[in-house]
Amino acid sequence: MTSYATAKLQEEKVFKDPVHRYVHVRDQAIWDLIGTKEFQRLRRIRQLGTTYLVFHGAEHSRFNHSLGVYEIVRRIIDDVFAGRSEWDEQERLLVLCSALLHDLGHGPFSHAFENVFATDHEEYTRAILLGNTEVNTVLQRVAPDFPEKVAQVIEKTYANKQVVSLISSQIDADRMDYLQRDAYYTGVSYGHFDMERILRVMRPRANQVVIKESGMHAVEDYIMSRYQMYLQIYFHPVSRSAEVILNNILKRVKALSEEDYWFKHAPIHFKPFFRNQITLDDYLALDESVMLTYIQFWMQEEDVILRDLSSRFINRKLFGYINMNPQKEPQRFERLQQLFNQMGLDATYYVVHDSTSDLPYDLYQPGAAMEKLPIMLQMSNGEVRELSQESSLVDAIAGRLKTDHKVYFPEEVLTDSEVDKGVREELIGLIHHCS
Amino acid sequence: MTSYATAKLQEEKVFKDPVHRYVHVRDQAIWDLIGTKEFQRLRRIRQLGTTYLVFHGAEHSRFNHSLGVYEIVRRIIDDVFAGRSEWDEQERLLVLCSALLHDLGHGPFSHAFENVFATDHEEYTRAILLGNTEVNTVLQRVAPDFPEKVAQVIEKTYANKQVVSLISSQIDADRMDYLQRDAYYTGVSYGHFDMERILRVMRPRANQVVIKESGMHAVEDYIMSRYQMYLQIYFHPVSRSAEVILNNILKRVKALSEEDYWFKHAPIHFKPFFRNQITLDDYLALDESVMLTYIQFWMQEEDVILRDLSSRFINRKLFGYINMNPQKEPQRFERLQQLFNQMGLDATYYVVHDSTSDLPYDLYQPGAAMEKLPIMLQMSNGEVRELSQESSLVDAIAGRLKTDHKVYFPEEVLTDSEVDKGVREELIGLIHHCS
Amino acid sequence: MTSYATAKLQEEKVFKDPVHRYVHVRDQAIWDLIGTKEFQRLRRIRQLGTTYLVFHGAEHSRFNHSLGVYEIVRRIIDDVFAGRSEWDEQERLLVLCSALLHDLGHGPFSHAFENVFATDHEEYTRAILLGNTEVNTVLQRVAPDFPEKVAQVIEKTYANKQVVSLISSQIDADRMDYLQRDAYYTGVSYGHFDMERILRVMRPRANQVVIKESGMHAVEDYIMSRYQMYLQIYFHPVSRSAEVILNNILKRVKALSEEDYWFKHAPIHFKPFFRNQITLDDYLALDESVMLTYIQFWMQEEDVILRDLSSRFINRKLFGYINMNPQKEPQRFERLQQLFNQMGLDATYYVVHDSTSDLPYDLYQPGAAMEKLPIMLQMSNGEVRELSQESSLVDAIAGRLKTDHKVYFPEEVLTDSEVDKGVREELIGLIHHCS
Amino acid sequence: MTSYATAKLQEEKVFKDPVHRYVHVRDQAIWDLIGTKEFQRLRRIRQLGTTYLVFHGAEHSRFNHSLGVYEIVRRIIDDVFAGRSEWDEQERLLVLCSALLHDLGHGPFSHAFENVFATDHEEYTRAILLGNTEVNTVLQRVAPDFPEKVAQVIEKTYANKQVVSLISSQIDADRMDYLQRDAYYTGVSYGHFDMERILRVMRPRANQVVIKESGMHAVEDYIMSRYQMYLQIYFHPVSRSAEVILNNILKRVKALSEEDYWFKHAPIHFKPFFRNQITLDDYLALDESVMLTYIQFWMQEEDVILRDLSSRFINRKLFGYINMNPQKEPQRFERLQQLFNQMGLDATYYVVHDSTSDLPYDLYQPGAAMEKLPIMLQMSNGEVRELSQESSLVDAIAGRLKTDHKVYFPEEVLTDSEVDKGVREELIGLIHHCS
Repeated sequence: MTSYATAKLQEEKVFKDPVHRYVHVRDQAIWDLIGTKEFQRLRRIRQLGTTYLVFHGAEHSRFNHSLGVYEIVRRIIDDVFAGRSEWDEQERLLVLCSALLHDLGHGPFSHAFENVFATDHEEYTRAILLGNTEVNTVLQRVAPDFPEKVAQVIEKTYANKQVVSLISSQIDADRMDYLQRDAYYTGVSYGHFDMERILRVMRPRANQVVIKESGMHAVEDYIMSRYQMYLQIYFHPVSRSAEVILNNILKRVKALSEEDYWFKHAPIHFKPFFRNQITLDDYLALDESVMLTYIQFWMQEEDVILRDLSSRFINRKLFGYINMNPQKEPQRFERLQQLFNQMGLDATYYVVHDSTSDLPYDLYQPGAAMEKLPIMLQMSNGEVRELSQESSLVDAIAGRLKTDHKVYFPEEVLTDSEVDKGVREELIGLIHHCS
Repeated sequence: MTSYATAKLQEEKVFKDPVHRYVHVRDQAIWDLIGTKEFQRLRRIRQLGTTYLVFHGAEHSRFNHSLGVYEIVRRIIDDVFAGRSEWDEQERLLVLCSALLHDLGHGPFSHAFENVFATDHEEYTRAILLGNTEVNTVLQRVAPDFPEKVAQVIEKTYANKQVVSLISSQIDADRMDYLQRDAYYTGVSYGHFDMERILRVMRPRANQVVIKESGMHAVEDYIMSRYQMYLQIYFHPVSRSAEVILNNILKRVKALSEEDYWFKHAPIHFKPFFRNQITLDDYLALDESVMLTYIQFWMQEEDVILRDLSSRFINRKLFGYINMNPQKEPQRFERLQQLFNQMGLDATYYVVHDSTSDLPYDLYQPGAAMEKLPIMLQMSNGEVRELSQESSLVDAIAGRLKTDHKVYFPEEVLTDSEVDKGVREELIGLIHHCS
Repeated sequence: MTSYATAKLQEEKVFKDPVHRYVHVRDQAIWDLIGTKEFQRLRRIRQLGTTYLVFHGAEHSRFNHSLGVYEIVRRIIDDVFAGRSEWDEQERLLVLCSALLHDLGHGPFSHAFENVFATDHEEYTRAILLGNTEVNTVLQRVAPDFPEKVAQVIEKTYANKQVVSLISSQIDADRMDYLQRDAYYTGVSYGHFDMERILRVMRPRANQVVIKESGMHAVEDYIMSRYQMYLQIYFHPVSRSAEVILNNILKRVKALSEEDYWFKHAPIHFKPFFRNQITLDDYLALDESVMLTYIQFWMQEEDVILRDLSSRFINRKLFGYINMNPQKEPQRFERLQQLFNQMGLDATYYVVHDSTSDLPYDLYQPGAAMEKLPIMLQMSNGEVRELSQESSLVDAIAGRLKTDHKVYFPEEVLTDSEVDKGVREELIGLIHHCS
Repeated sequence: MTSYATAKLQEEKVFKDPVHRYVHVRDQAIWDLIGTKEFQRLRRIRQLGTTYLVFHGAEHSRFNHSLGVYEIVRRIIDDVFAGRSEWDEQERLLVLCSALLHDLGHGPFSHAFENVFATDHEEYTRAILLGNTEVNTVLQRVAPDFPEKVAQVIEKTYANKQVVSLISSQIDADRMDYLQRDAYYTGVSYGHFDMERILRVMRPRANQVVIKESGMHAVEDYIMSRYQMYLQIYFHPVSRSAEVILNNILKRVKALSEEDYWFKHAPIHFKPFFRNQITLDDYLALDESVMLTYIQFWMQEEDVILRDLSSRFINRKLFGYINMNPQKEPQRFERLQQLFNQMGLDATYYVVHDSTSDLPYDLYQPGAAMEKLPIMLQMSNGEVRELSQESSLVDAIAGRLKTDHKVYFPEEVLTDSEVDKGVREELIGLIHHCS
């Protein structure tokens, strides 16, 4: 480690934050990382993707969230862990940097984008950390192997699981920040839990972080908040409609490029992705403002499907939906597709199955989600036990969530007098059938 | 008026809003207006322009704010004015639509943009209301002269000042929403006042809206919140730095276009503005995502000034500043300009005077700002008096704010070893001189 | 009904309330009821009894809570039910008065008091409503049978269960107020749920109140809040310690009076209770200030037990506790009693079993608690279903709570060097044994 | 100092507090002080005296507030001052104890009580600190001269004004706590300011505490909150009505005792005060529950005045009021007194002048209130300046508050048909005359 690893700012810097009141920065390296262009880029990527089309307050960026995760970790380390024998102060800067940078590789509307172009934001996080970037330059100043270490913590392969679990576990700083932050910006009353209490009862143990038994009820409350946030916000059916449309826009753009379609406005930012020859600079150049600019260009394309879907997304004319699992009702789903095709609406793009298990979120499912470190309670006698063994509440809900299946389609056809009446009536029958 | 003017939705629609908890929509016309593409476009324009570069939470859009203004007016009318003899229920839809649409003509980063291209968002509001737009179609359905009426209310020329003052006065729904909303999103503790109390004591009178005397202290608190928000947020010197840079980017782009500079990436969205031949569609096509996309293109231009300023804006390498009023210290300012020119940094773009009186905000200055309707108190004996005559607190602060003058410049030259030492020392002397 | 039943105040009266912001009173009868001395008496009785000895913020009175319950019911009726066909506006004043007066018969520290003196606050509520009181005078002015009707609503025997369920059901205004109010005053972060949402989805149906299916998650959140509040606040073991001591003070006073003990300061307020010849005036004269005054007198009595327990209560020297169910461990419990008796501490008063099933609270247990009307959801097809059939979350926790058994005793004997060492060691062994 | 002075608890103790979230106790001495009976007694004295009769939420005790003041001081010292060269860590426990105990000598409804019986809570604070009390025992364990030092800090005579000013200055922990706490419990929206910001910019200097210039706006906001809280809460005219009645109850009791009136229920707790031979135990025995118990006894006395006033206080039948300054309108006031005397209502008790300058509160008046240390700003160049010289806002309001004069009387006589019509009409004329 160089002296840079411990260099402090002459005066602490403070960011006003609505969730944590203030974000405090004392370390030179953290300050420098925040100033890098790769980190500033996160200002141009919304934390909740398309959710702002349902909850208009949800316009906050990943920059916002990343500072929050950093601040939570900072408080755990500086206010709770510092001075405890099972905590190694040498890991401090590593975990702070990992917290700050954990979302660095995210692109615009990641979920839909990664789905269509098979990119992976986690790989790009590593690429930014280790590549020719301002972030890498800062991390190198700490120590030559420091960028690699940060990458390992974020990828959960770092040997010391105590460090990993502060960033990625069932009760990590990432979740604690986003639940509160997303609740704050959307304005919902779920998402609140007593984080201060939880922080105060966290304890470092060899290779893990545990929660003192006395904090169990606060943790239960956190689990419940999470449950409600998923159901109310993250799985919101209208937000999924916007996601479905965005997904199909990208799918269409890709399909067109494969057919050598001539775009009025050349999608130069997308070409590397069409060809799957992507440089880091290509990746970083594609933020949400660029994406939204292209979608507006596409509203003027010749291709009817691309034009329509783009216009729907920009002007928020979303699809309606019904509860339907195509696997359970294959004939009904197929008939629906046929009818749309018959109306001249390509069912590939206009009759879309979506299920919540496609979504990149996890509820508390100890065991099932093995990659996520479970929540461990430290009993008053020193013993350590997994939460759901102690909490009948958590045990009751763990793994209870059923996958929700919906089929999305443009519902205005049902009342469109230009559509053949027989088709419309059959459609209406199909749609209302037992939903 | 058509029956559309009074048509109600079958079921009330509700938007979750973090500031007002819920925004309630019952009128078909309001619902239809929200769904228009011109109104949806406000999602792509931030309420506070460049402020998010200082207060990272301030990422909320004008869409957000517009719904809030509508909701405040709806509460005043439906919960307080309804049924009172001095309130004409016929004006209800007019004032609701005006509230919702009052910011419709805003473009991206309006202040800088209007400054350079001499556009006026108020003119565009009128153009959108009366032009060939979805908004106009909806308003026409209410009554043929309805779009014109809405325009008049927003322009403050509508005859009934009672209606106007709900949208534009020293204590209108616009201010009450933005103070609270901007405070909420930035997370500052200023900006809070007891709006519910104020709403409850508002009373319609012939041609005006008054506040019952019993609410005076709540109004004082509102005035103080405003004072603090202006000083702390709206006039924040670092936010003004971002504004200065953005202003210069646009100035530079315009200058280059006048010189027939060849842009690597043709600024097609800007051409109408260069030529000052702007259609409504041109105007509406230019939102914040498009603007940010261009600025990123400009980071790769040949022109050193444009490239540098664009990169500064995107990567947040802002200018520093000193307190200086060039009119009072013309020689010091000129010498500063000379030194920057000497260093090869064109002073037109790199030594910039900015004063808060250039900013589009007003403090409470009864009398001075004649275009703004003052706050009138209704005393218990029925008499009506201007607030500052009754409140010694408001009297004390009214008009107290001095214009703040600053000069912005890239402060890293002061420590740049490549800069001539003599120049640097003179610069440092000039800058520290009595500031 | 008289015209008084519909008489309105000239100007609405407003109470500032920290939980509901404002409590609004428009009806003359409500205003008059609030002004009665029987209602004002509720200012002198704390809502949470002894809880303030653990959560110092919990000093709020039943007056406070009663206004809150009234306000919630008023909002349901005036903002949601008014105008709906299944709601009978004739019931309006009845349900408002019942809400306001539902706790009228409570005495100081009711739980302990009723336990020792076998009084019943519900009987006294009836007695105040129908007796020679200011409250009765007001209610009589509405209609001669009105006091009886209010009594029936509060006792849940009123025929129209729609009215009853607003005051007493699994999701009544009483619970909704106290959960939020107790959370607010104690400062805990549990107890928050989206009441505004719940109110908006409540619907009157024949003989019941239902919740629209779309509000199910808000109701789940309310159920969870309740669960947490019970575990964290209402069942708090230290608060139960204060309750145990208070109970024993009263038990001792009663025992002494039965032995014709001569009190230094004659407990005149208690005599009617000793003899069980209690007039309504006797009952109303005994508020918390009087009770606390007596306990302070008793700190100076000759009787060692009464003196000690009183001093413990006033000066907050509470008992410690261990987890123990005497029924399951009769020998251990008996031995504990013997040892305390041996030390000269009468085990009747100094070794006390307490279980949470003794507490006057209920969790959500559909079926089990038949007297409480369950929560019914109205599905989108109009069908009505009991909540736990629809909510896997509620089903999971319904009836899960186990009774908690504790034994309380003065723990300082364990470290008191004046106590025989052998006894102390045996005690310590008994206490640490498998707890 | 003994080792007790630095003894820490094995595990930090935490109180849940709604204003500061948690109050943290680490020092053995602080923990022991909280456990003393003299400190526990503060639970039985409300912070805002009679204010709960207007703002029903204001039922919080001085215990509550005292913990809050302690916590604020603890944060200043431990989070901001610790480690700075101008702060002497040796003063830490002294200032913590002084903060905790600063209100120790308060009795029930101090203002009225001290007015009638000429006691002084500050003298009693000293008496408790130095007398034969549990508090003194704890303080003695720290050092023999420690009780005297604590007394000096609270009395502002301690040599080191840095220590004094944390407890008593224009921006001390006392004010910062009560403004926020009283706002929280009453539920008003005034009283909020950014305390966290203020704490962060406080700096120890030789013999004083200063505020960094960058925190000036937060301090302005604090001053404004104070201004509003005084006008809205502390000077509330209805609350003053309850105070006036309580004052007259005590005045009457004293007058009766001087006439050797035979009380049905001997006022034994008051006898020492009648004779002005008060022991510390006498003083400590008189808390609010005792006072309220006596007032209830007095509702049954023969003396009509005492009986009536007591009943008014307990049942909240308060006096009405008009704006009147008897010194400016001596004839009007005298005639009012005559008319009440004529009606058989002794004007001494039924026509009462009250002015806000009688109230024990101070606004920000630099200079005027010399005993209060002013607020000093530390400019960026190190210079220290008084706040009102820098803040035009504070300068504008400093000392602006005018004394408010009111005359209180039972207003129901105006509509009492048993009162002679001529008298009533003259009364009404007198009262409405130019008020």
